Amino acid sequence: MPVRSVLAFGEVMMRLEVPGYATLEQSRTLHYLFSGSGVNVLSGLSRFGYSTRLISKLPANRLGDAAMTYLRTLGLSTALILRGGEYMGMYFLEQGFGVRSSKVTYTNRKESSFCQSQLEEYEMDVLLADANLIHFCGISLAVTPNVRRIVVALAAEAKKRGLTVSFDCNFRPKLWDSYEEAKPWYEKMLSLADICMISEQDAIHILNWETEETDREKQMQDFLPKISEAFNLSVVAGTIREVAQDGHFLKGFVFMNGEMACSKSYHFPVLERIGAGDAFAGGVIHGFFEKMSSQETVDFAVAASVYAHTTYGDSPVADLKEIEAWMESSYREIER
Amino acid sequence: MPVRSVLAFGEVMMRLEVPGYATLEQSRTLHYLFSGSGVNVLSGLSRFGYSTRLISKLPANRLGDAAMTYLRTLGLSTALILRGGEYMGMYFLEQGFGVRSSKVTYTNRKESSFCQSQLEEYEMDVLLADANLIHFCGISLAVTPNVRRIVVALAAEAKKRGLTVSFDCNFRPKLWDSYEEAKPWYEKMLSLADICMISEQDAIHILNWETEETDREKQMQDFLPKISEAFNLSVVAGTIREVAQDGHFLKGFVFMNGEMACSKSYHFPVLERIGAGDAFAGGVIHGFFEKMSSQETVDFAVAASVYAHTTYGDSPVADLKEIEAWMESSYREIER
Amino acid sequence: MPVRSVLAFGEVMMRLEVPGYATLEQSRTLHYLFSGSGVNVLSGLSRFGYSTRLISKLPANRLGDAAMTYLRTLGLSTALILRGGEYMGMYFLEQGFGVRSSKVTYTNRKESSFCQSQLEEYEMDVLLADANLIHFCGISLAVTPNVRRIVVALAAEAKKRGLTVSFDCNFRPKLWDSYEEAKPWYEKMLSLADICMISEQDAIHILNWETEETDREKQMQDFLPKISEAFNLSVVAGTIREVAQDGHFLKGFVFMNGEMACSKSYHFPVLERIGAGDAFAGGVIHGFFEKMSSQETVDFAVAASVYAHTTYGDSPVADLKEIEAWMESSYREIER
Amino acid sequence: MPVRSVLAFGEVMMRLEVPGYATLEQSRTLHYLFSGSGVNVLSGLSRFGYSTRLISKLPANRLGDAAMTYLRTLGLSTALILRGGEYMGMYFLEQGFGVRSSKVTYTNRKESSFCQSQLEEYEMDVLLADANLIHFCGISLAVTPNVRRIVVALAAEAKKRGLTVSFDCNFRPKLWDSYEEAKPWYEKMLSLADICMISEQDAIHILNWETEETDREKQMQDFLPKISEAFNLSVVAGTIREVAQDGHFLKGFVFMNGEMACSKSYHFPVLERIGAGDAFAGGVIHGFFEKMSSQETVDFAVAASVYAHTTYGDSPVADLKEIEAWMESSYREIER
Amino acid sequence: MPVRSVLAFGEVMMRLEVPGYATLEQSRTLHYLFSGSGVNVLSGLSRFGYSTRLISKLPANRLGDAAMTYLRTLGLSTALILRGGEYMGMYFLEQGFGVRSSKVTYTNRKESSFCQSQLEEYEMDVLLADANLIHFCGISLAVTPNVRRIVVALAAEAKKRGLTVSFDCNFRPKLWDSYEEAKPWYEKMLSLADICMISEQDAIHILNWETEETDREKQMQDFLPKISEAFNLSVVAGTIREVAQDGHFLKGFVFMNGEMACSKSYHFPVLERIGAGDAFAGGVIHGFFEKMSSQETVDFAVAASVYAHTTYGDSPVADLKEIEAWMESSYREIER
Amino acid sequence: MPVRSVLAFGEVMMRLEVPGYATLEQSRTLHYLFSGSGVNVLSGLSRFGYSTRLISKLPANRLGDAAMTYLRTLGLSTALILRGGEYMGMYFLEQGFGVRSSKVTYTNRKESSFCQSQLEEYEMDVLLADANLIHFCGISLAVTPNVRRIVVALAAEAKKRGLTVSFDCNFRPKLWDSYEEAKPWYEKMLSLADICMISEQDAIHILNWETEETDREKQMQDFLPKISEAFNLSVVAGTIREVAQDGHFLKGFVFMNGEMACSKSYHFPVLERIGAGDAFAGGVIHGFFEKMSSQETVDFAVAASVYAHTTYGDSPVADLKEIEAWMESSYREIER
Repeated sequence: MPVRSVLAFGEVMMRLEVPGYATLEQSRTLHYLFSGSGVNVLSGLSRFGYSTRLISKLPANRLGDAAMTYLRTLGLSTALILRGGEYMGMYFLEQGFGVRSSKVTYTNRKESSFCQSQLEEYEMDVLLADANLIHFCGISLAVTPNVRRIVVALAAEAKKRGLTVSFDCNFRPKLWDSYEEAKPWYEKMLSLADICMISEQDAIHILNWETEETDREKQMQDFLPKISEAFNLSVVAGTIREVAQDGHFLKGFVFMNGEMACSKSYHFPVLERIGAGDAFAGGVIHGFFEKMSSQETVDFAVAASVYAHTTYGDSPVADLKEIEAWMESSYREIER
Repeated sequence: MPVRSVLAFGEVMMRLEVPGYATLEQSRTLHYLFSGSGVNVLSGLSRFGYSTRLISKLPANRLGDAAMTYLRTLGLSTALILRGGEYMGMYFLEQGFGVRSSKVTYTNRKESSFCQSQLEEYEMDVLLADANLIHFCGISLAVTPNVRRIVVALAAEAKKRGLTVSFDCNFRPKLWDSYEEAKPWYEKMLSLADICMISEQDAIHILNWETEETDREKQMQDFLPKISEAFNLSVVAGTIREVAQDGHFLKGFVFMNGEMACSKSYHFPVLERIGAGDAFAGGVIHGFFEKMSSQETVDFAVAASVYAHTTYGDSPVADLKEIEAWMESSYREIER
Repeated sequence: MPVRSVLAFGEVMMRLEVPGYATLEQSRTLHYLFSGSGVNVLSGLSRFGYSTRLISKLPANRLGDAAMTYLRTLGLSTALILRGGEYMGMYFLEQGFGVRSSKVTYTNRKESSFCQSQLEEYEMDVLLADANLIHFCGISLAVTPNVRRIVVALAAEAKKRGLTVSFDCNFRPKLWDSYEEAKPWYEKMLSLADICMISEQDAIHILNWETEETDREKQMQDFLPKISEAFNLSVVAGTIREVAQDGHFLKGFVFMNGEMACSKSYHFPVLERIGAGDAFAGGVIHGFFEKMSSQETVDFAVAASVYAHTTYGDSPVADLKEIEAWMESSYREIER
Repeated sequence: MPVRSVLAFGEVMMRLEVPGYATLEQSRTLHYLFSGSGVNVLSGLSRFGYSTRLISKLPANRLGDAAMTYLRTLGLSTALILRGGEYMGMYFLEQGFGVRSSKVTYTNRKESSFCQSQLEEYEMDVLLADANLIHFCGISLAVTPNVRRIVVALAAEAKKRGLTVSFDCNFRPKLWDSYEEAKPWYEKMLSLADICMISEQDAIHILNWETEETDREKQMQDFLPKISEAFNLSVVAGTIREVAQDGHFLKGFVFMNGEMACSKSYHFPVLERIGAGDAFAGGVIHGFFEKMSSQETVDFAVAASVYAHTTYGDSPVADLKEIEAWMESSYREIER
Repeated sequence: MPVRSVLAFGEVMMRLEVPGYATLEQSRTLHYLFSGSGVNVLSGLSRFGYSTRLISKLPANRLGDAAMTYLRTLGLSTALILRGGEYMGMYFLEQGFGVRSSKVTYTNRKESSFCQSQLEEYEMDVLLADANLIHFCGISLAVTPNVRRIVVALAAEAKKRGLTVSFDCNFRPKLWDSYEEAKPWYEKMLSLADICMISEQDAIHILNWETEETDREKQMQDFLPKISEAFNLSVVAGTIREVAQDGHFLKGFVFMNGEMACSKSYHFPVLERIGAGDAFAGGVIHGFFEKMSSQETVDFAVAASVYAHTTYGDSPVADLKEIEAWMESSYREIER
Repeated sequence: MPVRSVLAFGEVMMRLEVPGYATLEQSRTLHYLFSGSGVNVLSGLSRFGYSTRLISKLPANRLGDAAMTYLRTLGLSTALILRGGEYMGMYFLEQGFGVRSSKVTYTNRKESSFCQSQLEEYEMDVLLADANLIHFCGISLAVTPNVRRIVVALAAEAKKRGLTVSFDCNFRPKLWDSYEEAKPWYEKMLSLADICMISEQDAIHILNWETEETDREKQMQDFLPKISEAFNLSVVAGTIREVAQDGHFLKGFVFMNGEMACSKSYHFPVLERIGAGDAFAGGVIHGFFEKMSSQETVDFAVAASVYAHTTYGDSPVADLKEIEAWMESSYREIER
């Protein structure tokens, strides 16, 4: 497989997790790592053999240094990361148990080096050189007006230069005032993108589309081809998740090459919920590069996502061999 | 909600837990905290906004100091805790896994400052001032003759002064020689109490009552109104628990305001079993203060108890908002 | 019960386990202990009150010292362990989660003190004195030609001296070039043994036997009596395991005293998979010593094995009282 | 000793410390606690038997809850702490070793609930009721203009109501643009204060005073009485610290009751540097309340400060008995 | 060296240590192990190649089991340990730092299985068979009247059977009402002993002897020969320790074979203070068995004691090779 | 500063360290990382802004993957690392305390992927392209005959291609049969090198040179210029270390540009001894690239080495700014 070069633009955040099932009140210890939606997509693709570079900005202090070091452990190149500004976004994670849900508490992310960075700092010629694809996520579209501007500018420039543009809608209600505020920005990104991860909820609420279907799966199958056509997208993909007490159910949907395909529904216990959507996006991008069929793509992408629920940390760390072995085999206890 | 002032009388014990699923033989490390039935009831009520003060006795040494500090983290006032004597009760906890049950090993509790404390040390005027309710538990009734005497004296004096008296039967067979030994003391406490937590087993074995029902749930529904009448209790409540390999089943029963009510049966995985009964008691007391109906009370109290199974430590730490959000909503993965 | 003296011959390996569900890449910390098939069988029997001595060889360095110390915590006598050579075998264990399987990575075991030890170092008169039984395992038969030679020589000499010989087939495909290579050695050991743990797969693949049955359980019931007869074995036993996402299924089979018996099928969550087969072997040996019936033996041995899945570490650590209490009782939450 | 009621106004920050001597790059784990200059002074006084209440503001989220709980472990009343705003200040601490210095990295403190709080939120009648003394620190004077305004308003109102006002100059160069900017605010606070902790450097740089002395100790002895006179202060105190590779040297100076006194010079190894100045301030305040002589005060305050270097965490946790025992005795190995 | 068989009589206690330099209030974690004066002496001798058996009593519960397992890691035989009674003694250890001393808090030791054990439980014929020496310690003489009786009875019986009797005075003031109470019991033990560890303070305070010397070292040199003569002791030994901030000073004294000898004075940093006296006692016993001169004995015993200050845990764990290598060599950084 | 590209050839080993001061017998936990002499030199240079690539071989398994990931955290490119073979070398480290020395126990390194790698696997054109300097170490010269061959072949080819060749003698007696065996190989490497780290002991024992000086420092000053001349080396450097109980003494010596220079003698406490020599080598290489004088070079290189004693892990992690700040400033407590 020739090496493909993939870029992602997005924030790097510090995750501070209370170990075990204790709360912040009960503990004195935190485990930390660094993640972000773009980081996670690249981490997954890096294990699939891609050359991956993150476009972001980190403070020029010891926290920023620690983040840089951590990103390299994921296999990402940090050569394109700007340094400067003062802070980085952080979130505290208290793990839920059984019927008790996990709790996330953010620090003031809007003052972060990334969220305060300006379009002028990003040198398009340097950043977009020698790359095949660039990935964006709806969170970047939401955080601050200047980052929103950078997203659209980078996407437009990338498209102009012939890179494939990938966009994961990833709508976070708390970061927007209303769906109306988000609508034009999402439509802009969909029109620039070649590959898009979207849910039936996004179509209904953000795009304000209608469907006669009431079943979520049927809504997905109704919307994806229409979205592909409306925005001239090569690939449109999404997942439906159901949460039960003894694990999650996950099913994937991909429309590409004019064909709609869906995966089987997996039921599985969950170690890490965060980053599983990014693993799906990475799987879809891999299917696209490998010229897989829509069925092959959705099968692989959902498997990569399910598998990512079982590994520690937000960022996917399984390589192709590991995922494929799992897809092919029945359950294996111990690999000696 | 005006602040209500609640007292509890009971022992503070040190819990020393082997981390993970190792045994005392296999580990070199213990996690410790401080708990007790009264502590747990107050911890839950403290999160519901009550002013809570524990009546107990702790040694005037560094272990006692550490216990005092820990109790404050739970939101309890330690102003009424006597200091003196020499020791505190301890128990070692080895967590079970799957079919293997947890093991508890006690140190010599009977020599503890609390268990050796004398009625004369407790100044009624100081302890019972400015309080609305005082809670007792059957364990205190069992540990030593002098503590048994203190329980009854405090309850009688509290009743005389117009406090609501709450009593959780909490029968521990190992601490009594026979049911016959326990019977008069339990009857005494029931006659002094306004609120009582009791099980159908307690009615049959301790009170030596009979019922034609053979089903546990029906026995509960048969006994609770009769107990309320016999002992002139405002509230009588209890739970039935079934233990299965993949979690527990819990159902609550409350008779108050002349109405019998029962909750739905919850099925859920368990992080911490100890203290869940105290969370139920706290929920019942809250229902009483809030003038809830028997149905509202049992629904809230069982929810508080189920939720307490999912948090670390013996003592309930969820506030009203957290419990109510869980009661109202379906399952939520992550709260961001 | 008079003390019985049991020997086992086998390698001691160092297990280095990544804590939690992280991978070797993600962690900086390992938990270690020392185990081995022979170690595990003796650990179980030691808790049943047997005098247990391991025959093995460990390097005369600080790792060997640490292993010696650890073995004593399991209740094994280390008096018969040779010291010398340079290395000990190690394996790294990364715990799986849900659909992700555990991963084991070995270091170069073949250079270990044990695998390089020579027959001449083992003084039969010293090693086999005052013993009732000696246990071997198919792994020792596989590791190196010299250890293979020691196994057969020890077994033959033990048989000559009147010790009961126990052999667990424990076939590891990766350690043999082919089934054909293994066949004569396994046949040799079966002919020397009195007690044998074997699976229907071993009979088909190693012994190259045939059966008309297609169901695994029926194959077991078909093979065990035939193996007993063919090799003149007093006891032939085996288990069938099925792996499901929410736990394992385990069922045991024992042919002894001319009677075939099988246990009920247990379904249970798993904390530790490694060493559970050794716990079964220990249970069978105990049944043999206790002159249990085949039904009693299989019931006890499977219970010991199921229970061993719930305790930390490879080596069984439950005593008779604990296993029997579990067999007799229904599920108990907490033992106070 | 009658209970004295002491207030302090100041920020609560979260301290996140890399365990051992690793850097943020090298670790995955942090230990956290909550501290602040006012917190530390009150923590020390709380152990001396004072009633202590912190005036501050914390976010109404889970981090704020955790801080509230932690403050109670220190013995502080949290009844006067405002809740609201969004964030709390944090700092990361990497411990130095030998010749390598410790590193502190701050997050954006200026957006904290405290630093963004407004004078109008502080209800003087509630906050200053039933108190004997209120303590301020120069850091609060520096962080934001609105906090600076609150400091002066609270101090003036406290003085008017007859509370003793205590002020620790605690100048942090990075938080001010210049000494000139700081001068009028410091002079204002000195004129409002009754007790002041100041260094000879502060006198020279902030107050812009001159002295003919070149030796630091002599400068101290020259300045303290003059400062007392100039600002009509009852107590003026300070310390001189020298840092050597094998520990620190600390000497204290107090002018009160018209008398100048200095302690002996202690030389000692250091576990925790942060908070030791606050321990000194607490010691001075205790000397003032106890009507000690200037010599007694400085001896006690320096002992409290030296001892605080040996306990874990920023906040002093030694009680009077522990400090006095150490002052009286020679070195003791183990107290059984 | 032929194997020598050594016995010790003494209590096994559980040590629960707060990790790092935190206090019981500040931590949530404890490290535990099991020790005791007799345990420590045997642990040291076990590493020197002696066969060691402890005579003690432990409860027949999971704590007792854990203690048994731990003792085996030290190389002790647990075959002579009685099981029964209910409790074991425990102590909590908070490590000091620099000028802050360590704190030890005991639980109620007097109710322990050991302290409640009766002379009748100890079968002399079994316990004293096949042994060369038995060691006692002054702590056993102090804890309870029945243990005191056992000590003297065992010592007398051992002497009668020809075992060498070793006694370490180890006076703990808190366990006696007065020196007068202790005097007859100490004189009794000295008259039964062949080897004795004693300090000049013991001679002055317990034995009520006088000396014209004022210097501690000279007092030692004055007393030891006189004690040897007065009580007909083969070996009398002791140490003088001075505690400084940057480490301890230790010097040893031995009178045997009619010769007085003293070691050089070592100055060294201290990891573990507890058990270092027991390491000295073990060294003296080894010198006695090896028929070393008094100079060789004191040099070896002090080296063993100094070295024991540098290893984790109360019990000495260094073998002869390690101690001798250190005695012979100058300081070595790393042994590869 | 233009980026310089530096290569190093050497083994990557796994270091497994017992935390705290416990021994392998006493602990259950290890901390691990990956290091090696070449790794360490490159780690230091990477922080100085150099592009660094390691030439080595790692097994294609999960341990090898973990090592690759770790090397990236140090800033090394892993692009030139061969994958294959089966094992990697490991060593266990037990930290000493005070007078007790650290202990290192190796596993069988000779079977490692690196030690078994063959010259033919190393493609000179790929490995040596675009590089300015290549570093070797005497340990590689010692481990196996085939690695020895690779060292010399790579050095010769590098020299031919115009790279600067750096060689650290780093003689390990245990890896050679005799000095005579080592002599020709060391002479060969010295003749190929441009920069050499050597000690006066190496000159005397390996090269078999003589000197009239008896003082170590004078021997250094005598030998370095002569070595430079004899082998036509641009830079010859070395250090003299003295070990004392309260820290080490270190002094550096550099002969370059025809000038002999030595640093001041540092005295400092030690956190990590391993890798400090590699930090010195990195400092010398940096001085060479920066065209520093011999005095500037030795001052910087010794400072880098002293500083490396204070950071966790074998590999230097301080950047230029941190080292230079320390060189310029006096001791600083906390950097805020």
